Amino acid sequence: MEPGKQLTIGLFGFGVVGKGLYDVLHNTATLQSTIKKICIKNADKKRSIGAENFTTDAAVLLNDDSINVIVELIDDADAAFVIVKTALQTGKAVVSANKKMIAEHFEELLALQKQYQTPFLYEASCCASMPLIRNLEEYYDNDLLQSFRGIINGSTNFILTKIFQEHLEFNKALLMAQQSGFAESNPKLDIGGFDAANKLSILLAHSFGVIAATNRFIFNGIENISLPDAGVANEKKFSIKLVANAQKLKNGKLAAFVLPQFVTESDDLYHVQNEFNGVTTESTFADKHFFKGRGAGAFPTASAVLSDISALRYNYKYEYKKIYHQTDTELTNNFYLKVFISVDDIGKINKDDFEWIEEWHNGLRYSWLVAIIHAEKLLLSDWWRADGVSLIAYPDAIQENIDYKNISKLSLQLAGVV
Amino acid sequence: MEPGKQLTIGLFGFGVVGKGLYDVLHNTATLQSTIKKICIKNADKKRSIGAENFTTDAAVLLNDDSINVIVELIDDADAAFVIVKTALQTGKAVVSANKKMIAEHFEELLALQKQYQTPFLYEASCCASMPLIRNLEEYYDNDLLQSFRGIINGSTNFILTKIFQEHLEFNKALLMAQQSGFAESNPKLDIGGFDAANKLSILLAHSFGVIAATNRFIFNGIENISLPDAGVANEKKFSIKLVANAQKLKNGKLAAFVLPQFVTESDDLYHVQNEFNGVTTESTFADKHFFKGRGAGAFPTASAVLSDISALRYNYKYEYKKIYHQTDTELTNNFYLKVFISVDDIGKINKDDFEWIEEWHNGLRYSWLVAIIHAEKLLLSDWWRADGVSLIAYPDAIQENIDYKNISKLSLQLAGVV
Repeated sequence: MEPGKQLTIGLFGFGVVGKGLYDVLHNTATLQSTIKKICIKNADKKRSIGAENFTTDAAVLLNDDSINVIVELIDDADAAFVIVKTALQTGKAVVSANKKMIAEHFEELLALQKQYQTPFLYEASCCASMPLIRNLEEYYDNDLLQSFRGIINGSTNFILTKIFQEHLEFNKALLMAQQSGFAESNPKLDIGGFDAANKLSILLAHSFGVIAATNRFIFNGIENISLPDAGVANEKKFSIKLVANAQKLKNGKLAAFVLPQFVTESDDLYHVQNEFNGVTTESTFADKHFFKGRGAGAFPTASAVLSDISALRYNYKYEYKKIYHQTDTELTNNFYLKVFISVDDIGKINKDDFEWIEEWHNGLRYSWLVAIIHAEKLLLSDWWRADGVSLIAYPDAIQENIDYKNISKLSLQLAGVV
Repeated sequence: MEPGKQLTIGLFGFGVVGKGLYDVLHNTATLQSTIKKICIKNADKKRSIGAENFTTDAAVLLNDDSINVIVELIDDADAAFVIVKTALQTGKAVVSANKKMIAEHFEELLALQKQYQTPFLYEASCCASMPLIRNLEEYYDNDLLQSFRGIINGSTNFILTKIFQEHLEFNKALLMAQQSGFAESNPKLDIGGFDAANKLSILLAHSFGVIAATNRFIFNGIENISLPDAGVANEKKFSIKLVANAQKLKNGKLAAFVLPQFVTESDDLYHVQNEFNGVTTESTFADKHFFKGRGAGAFPTASAVLSDISALRYNYKYEYKKIYHQTDTELTNNFYLKVFISVDDIGKINKDDFEWIEEWHNGLRYSWLVAIIHAEKLLLSDWWRADGVSLIAYPDAIQENIDYKNISKLSLQLAGVV
């Protein structure tokens, strides 16, 4: 495509984002892009524009040589992958917002782009309106990125804000998020942490050149966060956020996880409220950056899709510089985490899993402790995700300075904690 | 330049930024860029690297055909312009951090880039490490930007933070800023608001396609902010920041100014402390974004210069899309501002300049008022910059909803305020 070339788009999906995109494209002449045909699942649904715009046959779009860009905005990750793969193979550029599909097929999608030299852009997949991928790809490529931390799921942040500010119970807050239109159609994707994990998986590739499926790092959602947990956080002057963490360790390896986390008031993430997303980066020369914006919603998502479409007019594609041109960075789970754990029944905790227990509060129906645990143990166990158990990472959760292996279990016994 | 091509750099200036850049480039093989020669002013100064690297003759760099990139990091804006102009004319790409030079010669530099098709990048000129220009240029090009507001001068923000948090007097806070290395070599550039005005001038071009020298909008610094002003701000639960504002009015024209401003705790800029910079944007689809980072200092500036150098390897140049491809946006001073004004002597205020006086407090040696004034009157007058007079914009200072022309002076007289 030459700079400024006219784009002819085949659109998959006509939900709120797709519809918003259609309206904008057809009202902004300077974009020089038109949607030729829209592929939908249900032909009988009443639409705001004429039936001649629609088809239920994907091949109508994929086999149309005049269509040079496929914009994929459907829910079904498996169907989306087939569409994207076919489009890339036939030399059509693709714009997608489907984080689940991208995270699950990252290596295949990378290979397809390499083989067919077709641009595949997906800024909208991570934090909607915020130009995260583009900046990680383009701007933080020389400077040595040390870490990024982020609130990258809007609906869980909305829920946590309601729990903290309005003292709502979890289920009521979730209902509010759904009514406000922030939640994924399947809320389990949000509140179970799957959505944030998918985004972290994508961001790891663009920030550190690490390709890692979500099963290679620890993640959890916020389903088990309770009002008493919020009470403890308040007492300690913390807030609770669902935070994706990626941090270079001293040994050069990368620690990454998505967990509910206590954050202090001096942390920029503390001030990210409601459905907003926020990301902090730390790099050797630029030092600390913080970026906040709307990470969910039809228009913020459409704005990122638009920006990708516009970039295609200038023949932009991700270079994946960190994957192809930089020293290999390896993901590791060989690190310690400082965590808060609460339980309704103390029997649910496997005490042997801890290296060190720092604080312990026993109650009749609510007990909690602060402890050090090895990340690998969390990755390989499930007790900490059980009903009635809540695990929240501490601020600066990654423990690099203390060699817990050298603290004998005896010292714990002497302290009376095991 | 082909992607990944080797860059051979001629560097002007070997201050902290230049030296930092040299060290990084020569320690990072993946950058594929080397500094061939460095032009300095004073040959006798002791340097950390061998004398064979230096020359005092600009022509040695500018006439060297093997040098394809000039990096200009000198203080003198006039000398810098001659260097940049010559380099662009001879087909050498240029990277600069010199906001004063760029703001003063914007149109000429634009014409040079157009005529010679040579890339000229200057990310480091605005807020150092923060990729502001790049994002305004690339990402906010389709979405309709409505406003941006920013703390874009690190040393004044450092000074204001010290006045507020440690209750230091202005001069002591300035001294601290200088000792910490945040202030420009001529502190008047910072505290007089000139530096922020230069940056605003550059940012207006990349955000709204408006080319405007600094004499076309209102600007001031923080020299006259006093401890009693901070006291009033505290009482009203405001902080004071030096804020650059650019806002599309309902009539489609652009209002822009740099003034000390009261900011509320719910404003993201409130939480930008010390030498940090912060910028908020508002656009139709993406809605609100907030970006915070280090806007001053050797390494943050070097990181932006590095990023530009890296972009040159991929043949990147600013498209100035908003200047060339979008509807003309016109700068206006036809708007009203709500302002706080304090004076040591009430005689210094020209009451007739106000449309409306909302609050008035008379003291023996410190009086203050809150009033509405037309921007044009501020642009054309000087009394509000005099010693002992302090003018601070209110939150949401731009008044669009009230037609003050229709409020007769009589109503003011009845209220007993004139």
